[in-house]
Amino acid sequence: MTKFTIVGAGNAGLAMAAHLKQLGGEVSLYDVVEAQLRPIIENNNVITITGSGLAGESKIDLVTSNLAEAIDGARLIISVTPAHTHKIVARDLAGHLVSGQMLLLHPGRTGGVLEVQKILREQNCRAEILVVEAQTVLYACRREGATVNIFGLKNKVACAGLPAVESQQFFELMQPLIPQFVPAPSIWHTSLHNIGMLFHPTPTLLNLGRMESGQPFDYYIDGVTPTIAALIEKLDSERLAVAKAMGATVPTVVEWLEASYGAVGQNLYEALQNNDSYQGIKAPRLEGIADKLALRYVTEDVPTGLVPVSELGQKFGVKTPTIDAIITMANILYETDFRASGRNLDQLGLKELAPEEILRL
Amino acid sequence: MTKFTIVGAGNAGLAMAAHLKQLGGEVSLYDVVEAQLRPIIENNNVITITGSGLAGESKIDLVTSNLAEAIDGARLIISVTPAHTHKIVARDLAGHLVSGQMLLLHPGRTGGVLEVQKILREQNCRAEILVVEAQTVLYACRREGATVNIFGLKNKVACAGLPAVESQQFFELMQPLIPQFVPAPSIWHTSLHNIGMLFHPTPTLLNLGRMESGQPFDYYIDGVTPTIAALIEKLDSERLAVAKAMGATVPTVVEWLEASYGAVGQNLYEALQNNDSYQGIKAPRLEGIADKLALRYVTEDVPTGLVPVSELGQKFGVKTPTIDAIITMANILYETDFRASGRNLDQLGLKELAPEEILRL
Repeated sequence: MTKFTIVGAGNAGLAMAAHLKQLGGEVSLYDVVEAQLRPIIENNNVITITGSGLAGESKIDLVTSNLAEAIDGARLIISVTPAHTHKIVARDLAGHLVSGQMLLLHPGRTGGVLEVQKILREQNCRAEILVVEAQTVLYACRREGATVNIFGLKNKVACAGLPAVESQQFFELMQPLIPQFVPAPSIWHTSLHNIGMLFHPTPTLLNLGRMESGQPFDYYIDGVTPTIAALIEKLDSERLAVAKAMGATVPTVVEWLEASYGAVGQNLYEALQNNDSYQGIKAPRLEGIADKLALRYVTEDVPTGLVPVSELGQKFGVKTPTIDAIITMANILYETDFRASGRNLDQLGLKELAPEEILRL
Repeated sequence: MTKFTIVGAGNAGLAMAAHLKQLGGEVSLYDVVEAQLRPIIENNNVITITGSGLAGESKIDLVTSNLAEAIDGARLIISVTPAHTHKIVARDLAGHLVSGQMLLLHPGRTGGVLEVQKILREQNCRAEILVVEAQTVLYACRREGATVNIFGLKNKVACAGLPAVESQQFFELMQPLIPQFVPAPSIWHTSLHNIGMLFHPTPTLLNLGRMESGQPFDYYIDGVTPTIAALIEKLDSERLAVAKAMGATVPTVVEWLEASYGAVGQNLYEALQNNDSYQGIKAPRLEGIADKLALRYVTEDVPTGLVPVSELGQKFGVKTPTIDAIITMANILYETDFRASGRNLDQLGLKELAPEEILRL
């Protein structure tokens, strides 16, 4: 029986753990925060899935906040944590991994594989580990206690690893179980197909007054006004230019909305207004400084989306002034330096490489 | 009888015209847009002031959209137009001015005198003209048709001209009439005492979603949240650092709120929350692209406030990263280059001067 370890007991982590158990795997579930695990332990390790075709109960083999135990014997470790914590996950894993294990970042955002491999090297991890990144999250779901309600599963989730030839073993393991995981041509196709970096930081910053004053509003419908939508399209054109310079074809944000939701329009503003799936999705309310600092729309998507795309642009001679401006605004509003803490060329392990060397990775 | 010309028939222009007429001057009122003048012409050139101690009727001597006629024989021309139009006013005036006339920019914002003098030189204006800038607008007022309701007058409006020694003639003329006009030590004291550049662009950009989606809110009370207030204080500290480097002491924004409104607090956020005068002041609603482009909170205050302070900072070795970030965001959202079109060192005529030469102006 193949053993899987899920790192991160959030919404999608629980869904993934219960789903893999249904598929016949041996599953351990790990979280660094023990309180996240308690409702499941108190429920005799049983996770209940409601909604979708996956409804049912799954008894997880091991639920633990001991990482070494959790990954012992695992063939595949799946990190289902915010992308800006991948570096911590990698650091914590480094001393426990053994050759032949695989690590899936679900999702990786931009540069997930590169960042994790760099940290494993720095931590003197001698194990040969295939690291794979998923372009997005398989499940639309919400956890409550030991129950996770799955609204739906994506039809396809593109995945890519490094070195690319080794990725085959990931697909050989996973495609029989979860056929939605399909191979992307390269990590640039997964990394530069990052929609969250478009939809999250910019509308948040340009609606910060509204979010912080507690006024509720529909994030995509009222929050993305014509000016903000036009700005997102500029960010998108910069992302596409970087992808093109790196030989990766990725859909525009407008194409993505049509492919994902059937929402169409003359421009992004119209397509969002026409997207029924976004109706009623409220903006996060920021009740104080703690809420603001925990807001992944900025703290995840700037350092693991905008920053690496900007940095790759620098390496490949593509200017990204709009992306850079949003990074600067986020830095100032968060009194931090997301470029320094985020996935810059150094943290991606690309600083000393020439463009052609990067494309040969 | 001293002749005054008011350029700009907006709220404060009408107040100034009617007020100076009450004070015994000969007054002509000019506006480049004839429709602005029509209600007054149709009212037989009579402007009615309501409210304040100035209530009454004033028959203006000449109401015209012919600038040459308007300024003929005037001792003092007062530009009561948005600061970003001063360059157009200066260009239009250049061919008609005669030596001995004075021009007051009411208000000048940052660098008004310098910009106007540069344009007069460029337009080969041979007349010797004293140009004076007022730190703020004397009147709190609102025009409707041929009536202007004056809510109040400021106790003091600091003014400064170049060359400083010549400013004496301005005060000799005006202090007997409007004693509120008091001398500032230098144009840096008026130019760097710019509060609008703090209160206008930043909350506008960070509430753009709310303003553009038409949701009404109190601009200062709900719009300036703790994060936005903290950002404004950073802008303010950069402004103060530039002023200090130039030898000008100007009040902090928090000191200004206390002096102007008696509003106090531990920080800017608290002081604004405690400012009764700001309760109920609604944010502008942006119904479409035309509204956005006409929004002086950005189109005036960025090029005539943030830009010149940033540029002076460059000249005097003071970094202004927060101000620069807001300029960049405004540029991107307005698809323009406010640094190029605004009061940069070149437009201020300071590009080729060393810091010590600038301070000797």
